[in-house]
Amino acid sequence: MTPLTLINGTPAQNIAANDRGLAYGQGVFETLLIRNGSVCFWPWHLERLLEGCRRLGILTDGLQQQLEADIAGLSLPQQASLKVLVTCGAGGRGYAVTENLVPTRILTLGPVPSRDPDPAEAGARLLWCTTTLAQQPLLAGLKHLNRLEQVLARAEWNAADIHEGLTCDTSGRVIEGTMSNLFFRIGEQWHTPSLENCGVAGILRRWVLERLPGLAGDVRMGEYSPAEVEAADELFVCNSLIGIWPVVELAGQHYEIGATSRHLQSLLNKEYDARC
Amino acid sequence: MTPLTLINGTPAQNIAANDRGLAYGQGVFETLLIRNGSVCFWPWHLERLLEGCRRLGILTDGLQQQLEADIAGLSLPQQASLKVLVTCGAGGRGYAVTENLVPTRILTLGPVPSRDPDPAEAGARLLWCTTTLAQQPLLAGLKHLNRLEQVLARAEWNAADIHEGLTCDTSGRVIEGTMSNLFFRIGEQWHTPSLENCGVAGILRRWVLERLPGLAGDVRMGEYSPAEVEAADELFVCNSLIGIWPVVELAGQHYEIGATSRHLQSLLNKEYDARC
Repeated sequence: MTPLTLINGTPAQNIAANDRGLAYGQGVFETLLIRNGSVCFWPWHLERLLEGCRRLGILTDGLQQQLEADIAGLSLPQQASLKVLVTCGAGGRGYAVTENLVPTRILTLGPVPSRDPDPAEAGARLLWCTTTLAQQPLLAGLKHLNRLEQVLARAEWNAADIHEGLTCDTSGRVIEGTMSNLFFRIGEQWHTPSLENCGVAGILRRWVLERLPGLAGDVRMGEYSPAEVEAADELFVCNSLIGIWPVVELAGQHYEIGATSRHLQSLLNKEYDARC
Repeated sequence: MTPLTLINGTPAQNIAANDRGLAYGQGVFETLLIRNGSVCFWPWHLERLLEGCRRLGILTDGLQQQLEADIAGLSLPQQASLKVLVTCGAGGRGYAVTENLVPTRILTLGPVPSRDPDPAEAGARLLWCTTTLAQQPLLAGLKHLNRLEQVLARAEWNAADIHEGLTCDTSGRVIEGTMSNLFFRIGEQWHTPSLENCGVAGILRRWVLERLPGLAGDVRMGEYSPAEVEAADELFVCNSLIGIWPVVELAGQHYEIGATSRHLQSLLNKEYDARC
């Protein structure tokens, strides 16, 4: 499929060069999965997007209605990805926002990236990135446009058979993948890194945190070293587009795909069929 | 004067919505002072810009020549500001840059912001921002497009008679102003915060570090608490557009404009007259 872009509700390819999304990264984005011609987890994506706008000084009056009208105007295919990006708008004087700026909405409909073999089936191979994430509680959890750390981390490998890289914060605690969140099991206990100081609080992470306890007990959110993660008995990474990728390799070490990872994948597919 | 924008050498107002400068902040910028119809400190701005491009994975082949041709094609007024912004270009697949992308060049010529009274003459009034700067040595020093921290810090005050806010890092060490670097004197000793872990290494800071020793002895670069800065006998902040602003107030406390600050201002003006 050819990507289609709507800017403020109109098919277009360009934005103003003085948009604050470009100048300072004052904006947020969501990457939505389209399944069966519907948007998956829209209420959760919208909630995170609106919270990000509020924390970054982006006006939200009428934004939900505008975004929903934008999406309703799209002819959604059975399966696609939809990137929804909202910036503070064009203008201001230097770093100061000196007037009520009209946010810019950019929606881009494109294909879901496919990989052969599909890591969701065959399992994902991961490495550790040397790029670390700075600790900034003011921005932690948000999917904002200041993503240089992810760009630098992702540039650390080219091999097509490496599917994701894990990053630590500047204190050496494991945080997340460049584009995904991490869950792992040690013995019977599931864990996921705390995102108090950095990282993106993913929509699939939220879903896993709701569903995993019913399958395998409470999930502990904490601080972990790379060695603790490597000692796991089962691991997976997740995001809205890839779903759940069981990890079969991390830093050259091999892992079995666990029953819980497969169970979650199956639950997620049912969820998609029911709600999307 | 009406702002004029050149995009890749051509007068234009828009950039591609899929530019990586917008998507991830993968780009850098410089804010140049135009005096007597010439660009001030161009070699230093260019040097920092090219270093930023290299560290962020932006191709620099021919970039210097292109930027210099862009500037040569502008009709520069006697006094103006010129923002030069370079991004990685449009495209890539997610965070990965999958091919050789052509950088986007955006030059915007506009007026030099004026304030009445001019803080360069009357002195600047400063406050402390509560927004702190994350520590990220990989990005420290660069003037990249991930500037949410500066936007948040600058949004902390509206009063027109407050001219700048100082920020600390997340460990409480003083770093810089939202748009300027800080120098201060305790007794006979001049100091400026180290920018090893965060902050922008300003062009005027570089000039001051070259010139101040000849006037007042070596400058110490170190780690300072807000209390140490408040105890200073003389302070100034500086950047390329404002030059040197002596500080007359910080957090409600008053300071005299020092002879060294005035001396530096006079040297800077001579430098502009000679080199711009």
